[in-house]
Amino acid sequence: MADSPNCDLTSLSPLELFGRVTEQGEKVRALKAGKAPKDEVDAAVRMLLSLKLSYKTTTGQDYQAGLPPKDLVLINNGTAKEDEDFVDPWNVQTSNAKGVDYDKLIVRFGSSKIDTDLINRIERATGQKPHRFLRRGIFFSHRDMDQILDAYENKKSFYLYTGRGPSSQAMHIGHLIQFIFSKWLQEVFDVPLIIQLTDDEKYLWKDLTTEKAYEYAKENAKDLIACGFDVNKTFIFSDLDYLGTSTGFYKNIVKVQKHVTFNQVKGIFGFTDSDCIGKISFPAIQAAPSFSSSFPQIFNGKENIQCLIPCGIDQDPYFRMTRDVAPRIGQPKPALLHSVFFPALQGAQTKMSASDPNSSIFLTDTPKQIKTKINKHAFSGGRDTIEEHRKYGGNCDVDVSFMYLTFFLEDDDKLEQLKQAYTSGELLTGELKKVLIETLQPFVAAHQERRKQVTDEMVKQFMTPRKLAFEF
Amino acid sequence: MADSPNCDLTSLSPLELFGRVTEQGEKVRALKAGKAPKDEVDAAVRMLLSLKLSYKTTTGQDYQAGLPPKDLVLINNGTAKEDEDFVDPWNVQTSNAKGVDYDKLIVRFGSSKIDTDLINRIERATGQKPHRFLRRGIFFSHRDMDQILDAYENKKSFYLYTGRGPSSQAMHIGHLIQFIFSKWLQEVFDVPLIIQLTDDEKYLWKDLTTEKAYEYAKENAKDLIACGFDVNKTFIFSDLDYLGTSTGFYKNIVKVQKHVTFNQVKGIFGFTDSDCIGKISFPAIQAAPSFSSSFPQIFNGKENIQCLIPCGIDQDPYFRMTRDVAPRIGQPKPALLHSVFFPALQGAQTKMSASDPNSSIFLTDTPKQIKTKINKHAFSGGRDTIEEHRKYGGNCDVDVSFMYLTFFLEDDDKLEQLKQAYTSGELLTGELKKVLIETLQPFVAAHQERRKQVTDEMVKQFMTPRKLAFEF
Repeated sequence: MADSPNCDLTSLSPLELFGRVTEQGEKVRALKAGKAPKDEVDAAVRMLLSLKLSYKTTTGQDYQAGLPPKDLVLINNGTAKEDEDFVDPWNVQTSNAKGVDYDKLIVRFGSSKIDTDLINRIERATGQKPHRFLRRGIFFSHRDMDQILDAYENKKSFYLYTGRGPSSQAMHIGHLIQFIFSKWLQEVFDVPLIIQLTDDEKYLWKDLTTEKAYEYAKENAKDLIACGFDVNKTFIFSDLDYLGTSTGFYKNIVKVQKHVTFNQVKGIFGFTDSDCIGKISFPAIQAAPSFSSSFPQIFNGKENIQCLIPCGIDQDPYFRMTRDVAPRIGQPKPALLHSVFFPALQGAQTKMSASDPNSSIFLTDTPKQIKTKINKHAFSGGRDTIEEHRKYGGNCDVDVSFMYLTFFLEDDDKLEQLKQAYTSGELLTGELKKVLIETLQPFVAAHQERRKQVTDEMVKQFMTPRKLAFEF
Repeated sequence: MADSPNCDLTSLSPLELFGRVTEQGEKVRALKAGKAPKDEVDAAVRMLLSLKLSYKTTTGQDYQAGLPPKDLVLINNGTAKEDEDFVDPWNVQTSNAKGVDYDKLIVRFGSSKIDTDLINRIERATGQKPHRFLRRGIFFSHRDMDQILDAYENKKSFYLYTGRGPSSQAMHIGHLIQFIFSKWLQEVFDVPLIIQLTDDEKYLWKDLTTEKAYEYAKENAKDLIACGFDVNKTFIFSDLDYLGTSTGFYKNIVKVQKHVTFNQVKGIFGFTDSDCIGKISFPAIQAAPSFSSSFPQIFNGKENIQCLIPCGIDQDPYFRMTRDVAPRIGQPKPALLHSVFFPALQGAQTKMSASDPNSSIFLTDTPKQIKTKINKHAFSGGRDTIEEHRKYGGNCDVDVSFMYLTFFLEDDDKLEQLKQAYTSGELLTGELKKVLIETLQPFVAAHQERRKQVTDEMVKQFMTPRKLAFEF
């Protein structure tokens, strides 16, 4: 699964953006003229497109070479602007400081909202208080979760599948959202969990060797294991490794590949004729773990077990494709639970990215780094002066520190108190940031402590195909 | 590896061809309107294109709907026509009864002719009389065979890789050409042989389940084993099976897939946007066995062993692509030996095809069937009457019985005698056919006898990844 290549563009002025687009256009031309490696050119072109998009959302105008922005009309946070949200597995971009308009995304993607009824049903089915990610709309959209519950209430179980693209050793706190939630789902439903590390994807998209990508996969696995998964109920695999050890995985991949055309992946993922055939066929590799027959060792050869995928909404294109193919290859459609993006420190216009150190709190950050990053970079919804803040109050809808607290502060009452105090102006930005710092410092430190305990032997155990402790 | 979908078009008159194109066009439209399965539509479109090509080579005109051929100018067997030879992994078509112009193909493909010097070098290097396929120009083209010999003379060995697409249980005698020659190469050079059965390709291209394609692969393996390969020196594998059991194969596949774009496979293989992503990425799967690291068990983990591929010239596009990618992924380029096509009974305009029972002598044919097929269908270079034949003589260049004898009659002197007697008119068509029947009946019967001895256990042995009896 993929990260956004850049994320702090929205903080640039229109003229700065114009300069960046011009500069990047020249870079692309130079790379092409110099017959640079395709990956390098592709990355530069993607950055160019992203810059042009930012330019358009900021200025309301298409970029035109040689024509710097003149009559600048900064679009308000209105409807016209929300239409500009751009979401695919590699890019998330919106001009709205509140972030992507998720209700619109539900309509556009054709998924269903996770409403109070569904949350109550989950509570009844599991007998557990719904996770804060459900209570607070962080997992906000689903496909067929009602069917999962219908079956579950009739004693028919399912398995969880999620994943991560190991693009580097460094994971940030946003990367953990899927895994924190998967762990909760696994515990309350008592179901197996399968985690795919798409090292092949990272090899295809990035300037990495297969060896390096596999190494990142194993390093990332340590961070996942540090989340506290039960080894008897969890299988973590690298594509580069597992494809060569499973009798079922490739068969499902080739079945998906037979039923998806280039036209389709072009429409879904925006691939072009100059993309490598590895990228073009990759979606099938992310699709195949949705079918239990991809894991004969794990499920003891049992096929057609229902799959539930918790993932970021940006990964939905993969699974829309998967759900389209599933009935044609005699497999059940996977159900889905979609999360919002984890915002960058600089603001909710893009998701947090591992490629910009200042956009993220890394799992390796020291308490001091966490404090500095939040104080220096966390976009504030507070007022310009203390006087104004006291008078008019802060805006939690755009305040990144408050957003982060909705992800990481467990106590609902305390969160509500903070919101009221900040909105009324009683709580200052620095005080809100302090609460976040005091929440994240112990969270990250505890993660680091657990990660230290993860041995290579444990990684091997988690990554060895074996029957899990379930009967279906 | 693939078969030609049709092969007796050149025997149709221009008007018959016009009717066939029109009819096929209607069929394609009906299939598309009825939203028929993509494979079915694709096959119909391919047939339509092939018919249009035949129409053009026969009439010298492009097919125009509603305009039957009028001023028919049948092109002579001259240069203009030879330019129309059409060769790719799925279609072979020429309007020349002598078959494809192989010298032109060498120029077009940029390969090298296997000349007397090279044949003499092979004889010196191996101390063995060159195989009749070399003596008679059946293997006529190569890439880097001189480098293979340079290395071999310096005690640096290589391995052989060839393959087959298991599209049905029925193999015909033409399918054995690669394997007869590979066996000879294996014996005289004393090298390992790896045979790929592309059951995944057949699943992708044909209306087959993965189970059926794999079953065909195992059935075909029996025919290959019946050729007499040494189990200690030969590894046969099905893609569907082996991909899930090899730690090296997928890694090489994804490396090739990273270095080939859709534009490239479009240019090389004629894929279109409506082809499935499985077809688009498949060339990498036929490429990867060219690298010894795809077979860690076979070569005991040894990488960069030189590969030599004996194959039909129609498979060259796969390996041109492979040779282009090899240095970019740090692998040696495979060397190649190209064979001519095995002609259909009806004439050398196309290669023999398993999908038309009367175009082929099958390995399961009875002596009586062989006799009937040759007498009834083998295109003759003889004259219309015995008197004319005695007077003007027959034409061995277009006589399919004589062509088949060049493939299967070992005795050079006898072949030369037959040629002279037939050309002079001394030998009649029926007599020449009798020699062929008497050559093929015992050949096929002996194959059937050996095939009966091949047990499932032997198939399993050949198809189990294991170290072969060589040190590199």
